[in-house]
Amino acid sequence: MNILFVGDVYGRTGRQMIEEYLPKLKSKFHPTVTIVNAENAAHGKGLTKKIYRQMLDAGADMLTMGNHTWDNREIFEFIDDAKQIVRPANFPEGTPGTGIRYVTLHHNLQVAVINIQGRVFLPPLDDPFRIVKQLVEEARKKTPIIFVDVHAETTSEKLALGWYLDGSVSAVIGTHTHIQTADERIFPQGTAYLTDVGMTGPYNGIIGVQRASVTKRFLTSMPVRFDSEEGPGQLSAVHIQINDKSGKATSINRILINDDHLFFD
Amino acid sequence: MNILFVGDVYGRTGRQMIEEYLPKLKSKFHPTVTIVNAENAAHGKGLTKKIYRQMLDAGADMLTMGNHTWDNREIFEFIDDAKQIVRPANFPEGTPGTGIRYVTLHHNLQVAVINIQGRVFLPPLDDPFRIVKQLVEEARKKTPIIFVDVHAETTSEKLALGWYLDGSVSAVIGTHTHIQTADERIFPQGTAYLTDVGMTGPYNGIIGVQRASVTKRFLTSMPVRFDSEEGPGQLSAVHIQINDKSGKATSINRILINDDHLFFD
Amino acid sequence: MNILFVGDVYGRTGRQMIEEYLPKLKSKFHPTVTIVNAENAAHGKGLTKKIYRQMLDAGADMLTMGNHTWDNREIFEFIDDAKQIVRPANFPEGTPGTGIRYVTLHHNLQVAVINIQGRVFLPPLDDPFRIVKQLVEEARKKTPIIFVDVHAETTSEKLALGWYLDGSVSAVIGTHTHIQTADERIFPQGTAYLTDVGMTGPYNGIIGVQRASVTKRFLTSMPVRFDSEEGPGQLSAVHIQINDKSGKATSINRILINDDHLFFD
Amino acid sequence: MNILFVGDVYGRTGRQMIEEYLPKLKSKFHPTVTIVNAENAAHGKGLTKKIYRQMLDAGADMLTMGNHTWDNREIFEFIDDAKQIVRPANFPEGTPGTGIRYVTLHHNLQVAVINIQGRVFLPPLDDPFRIVKQLVEEARKKTPIIFVDVHAETTSEKLALGWYLDGSVSAVIGTHTHIQTADERIFPQGTAYLTDVGMTGPYNGIIGVQRASVTKRFLTSMPVRFDSEEGPGQLSAVHIQINDKSGKATSINRILINDDHLFFD
Ligand SMILES: [Fe+2]
Ligand SMILES: [Fe+2]
Ligand SMILES: [Fe+2]
Ligand SMILES: [Fe+2]
Ligand SMILES: [Fe+2]
Ligand SMILES: [Fe+2]
Ligand SMILES: [Fe+2]
Ligand SMILES: [Fe+2]
Repeated sequence: MNILFVGDVYGRTGRQMIEEYLPKLKSKFHPTVTIVNAENAAHGKGLTKKIYRQMLDAGADMLTMGNHTWDNREIFEFIDDAKQIVRPANFPEGTPGTGIRYVTLHHNLQVAVINIQGRVFLPPLDDPFRIVKQLVEEARKKTPIIFVDVHAETTSEKLALGWYLDGSVSAVIGTHTHIQTADERIFPQGTAYLTDVGMTGPYNGIIGVQRASVTKRFLTSMPVRFDSEEGPGQLSAVHIQINDKSGKATSINRILINDDHLFFD
Repeated sequence: MNILFVGDVYGRTGRQMIEEYLPKLKSKFHPTVTIVNAENAAHGKGLTKKIYRQMLDAGADMLTMGNHTWDNREIFEFIDDAKQIVRPANFPEGTPGTGIRYVTLHHNLQVAVINIQGRVFLPPLDDPFRIVKQLVEEARKKTPIIFVDVHAETTSEKLALGWYLDGSVSAVIGTHTHIQTADERIFPQGTAYLTDVGMTGPYNGIIGVQRASVTKRFLTSMPVRFDSEEGPGQLSAVHIQINDKSGKATSINRILINDDHLFFD
Repeated sequence: MNILFVGDVYGRTGRQMIEEYLPKLKSKFHPTVTIVNAENAAHGKGLTKKIYRQMLDAGADMLTMGNHTWDNREIFEFIDDAKQIVRPANFPEGTPGTGIRYVTLHHNLQVAVINIQGRVFLPPLDDPFRIVKQLVEEARKKTPIIFVDVHAETTSEKLALGWYLDGSVSAVIGTHTHIQTADERIFPQGTAYLTDVGMTGPYNGIIGVQRASVTKRFLTSMPVRFDSEEGPGQLSAVHIQINDKSGKATSINRILINDDHLFFD
Repeated sequence: MNILFVGDVYGRTGRQMIEEYLPKLKSKFHPTVTIVNAENAAHGKGLTKKIYRQMLDAGADMLTMGNHTWDNREIFEFIDDAKQIVRPANFPEGTPGTGIRYVTLHHNLQVAVINIQGRVFLPPLDDPFRIVKQLVEEARKKTPIIFVDVHAETTSEKLALGWYLDGSVSAVIGTHTHIQTADERIFPQGTAYLTDVGMTGPYNGIIGVQRASVTKRFLTSMPVRFDSEEGPGQLSAVHIQINDKSGKATSINRILINDDHLFFD
């Protein structure tokens, strides 16, 4: 089986990239499961019910989130009923939503999708190492195919989680920095790893945000309004092939679509 | 002309990768100028005089540094006399060393090398935007060929500095996260950009450090000793071609050498 | 001469405390100069022109600010014309407003009022040590009576600034944590010091904010709206006596008015 | 019954203040239980077995700790056997030591002592709100007299924990900033509260550390060695009276002994 994972969809430009290229990517790769990080899908800040629907209609089987999960308050109205969203699992007990869900394939094969958030330079949450380990143990009773979206700031915390899970999950893929890293690899025990898959949104902004605003903020230290950048888009993704029986990854390849990297069928 | 820039050399493994591959890379690319970030060259912590010499002997024309500049106290004894080191320019006035130096080429062509450090999730320093702008203005009186090593944690601060300098320098290349990013590009006004060039050191550590120690730290929140990881190495670099007259970049290519990416002549 | 300095006025409750008690405090202490930190005067977020006027009418001679200076955008319209406001001096050059102003007393005696902001656990600004030193040198050409409001988070940065300025200014008083400290003293060279003067606002909130919101934030790690707490108020201040000729402090006394510390004439 | 709690003992000067004044304070107040925060007792960094003994000999019934618990590696050898130490309870499961202990008084009356650490601007640990609540529920099965040392950086997290525990514990007293705050009070449901009790150590250092080193660090952004300041000492403490039956606090008074606040019997 194989998984296509698309990184942080940012605002209208990100959603347009999904609508234009996700069908093409699915035709090209025929992913068994398609996962999309959607924490910035609504104007850079969270997710609405309409956009949730739009992402599923465009071909996503599951959405993952991150530190922006609660930015748009609409999420509280639908997250508990939304069977195709996982939010970081290490929010405190009692938090709406869940950090693990399963996608059921042919012959009852299941894929576990876990979302976990780092704590370094991010708000305090429960221990991601302990929580992800519990969830992985729970998931392995049902399936060897486990995908983990590690939403974190630093390379060290992501790498530590990746190595920590090596051999017990199929893939550990990072999100949050909005810049794709070039370190895709398969760890010795069979876990596919990439520090960050990158963002799907405005190609000429600063992590999605209007360049002028971010620059003004850095130059003046004053509060500025952060809108999405205009102009051409980018799609960032990763494609992972996994052995159905063992859950081990057999290949991992990065995907980048923008004005400097055109899409070819 | 063209520049070869090698990312954060980490400990003994990093130095061995330099000794083995820098000559090969120079034979392959014939860089006009070779620059190496050496902030972690001495056991992950700073630089000694001996290692400074070793890096030059291996083919570096200029070393850049970062937040680890002062970790090894030997640096205070030689940095002021070392003509081939730049440390982050936005340390306070009176700090030993300098943040800008020039490499002189044939026909008196000069290449300015600037090192600047970000402030987000890093200790407070002078404003990198203001300082780098002053240095670039100073450098442009002498040469259009200006290389900037932006040593910073977040993708947003690096991107903001990159776009801010677009058109006034030849290249803005990030260091510090120790993971190479895949977003190399040439900005509209001709500045080559890469968020992070990545680390040159142990391939199976966590940003160079022994995996077991880092994992223990995350699992226990207790102080641990950080030694270098053993085992195979990696070299991370970037190659930039620049028009001599305009100082504009014409190409930027990433280089990664490790067990998963073998070097070919 | 003597200075009365009132700490961070927070929202409506804070303003009511000023209107009720500032006249009484002035009758009691007859301060030569009255200074009020007003960074939270408008609903906890910045300052409006109307509230600026209200503070002056209630008896303030000068207002100091802090990291919330720009929270209410009205400030941009009047800060440059407002002769009785200082904002942190270490914002970048070109920032509206100023970080030093003078209050002129009888016989042309002047009092310099400086506002400076720390950088530890606060957004990056220019070096407070360097900037405050420059301003103090400038001020000392005009007057030996210099009051410094150090707006900072950590006790170490405030203490370091206090000791650094000992002997060259009359008083270094901290703001920002909204809790009054008990460490008032006169340093060996004659500078009065207090790590934090405390807040003037709701006595039963959490640093002014509604208790229920802050608790919810800590318990859930979710975004919450921060309104001012209701109920009884508190006023926090400090009274400093200074020798006119030398500028040295001769006494420093804390003032706290709340349901547990009633005001007596 | 009544409790005497002495704040962060820092290095040799702090230990000397304990040896000189703790007996005098005990003669004056006759505390039923004496608690001392000792996270900085060994040269500012953790605790040794010898110093543990010394603190008990000087009159402490229980020691509390904080983020410096593990700085001196000797602690690992004796903490599990040391019946009179509590370390922050929200370290991960499996951490040596414990976060709650009981002091047994006459007639089997017990006093629960809990140590908990904040997470804002401190390393990530388990949720202090959830953990402290669990421990308080456990303790209340044995005794209504519960003392909580909240080791945290920000006033907001300490206040939030204090209000959160109001009515279910006898006292919530903060440590860590090394500066005593002036906000002692009894909350409406009977919990005594103080944001920070302050440090017991060098009076003229910067939170205990040599002034010159800290200043150099701030001025240069370079690594410096942090030794203890020399010269006169200070002792910071708080005295709380508690109803034996209800566990409610009936009074809270701060104690400060230094060259500006001499001790009187
Ligand atoms: Fe994102
Ligand atoms: Fe994020
Ligand atoms: Fe580095
Ligand atoms: Fe670095
Ligand atoms: Fe404030
Ligand atoms: Fe503030
Ligand atoms: Fe301490
Ligand atoms: Fe501490």
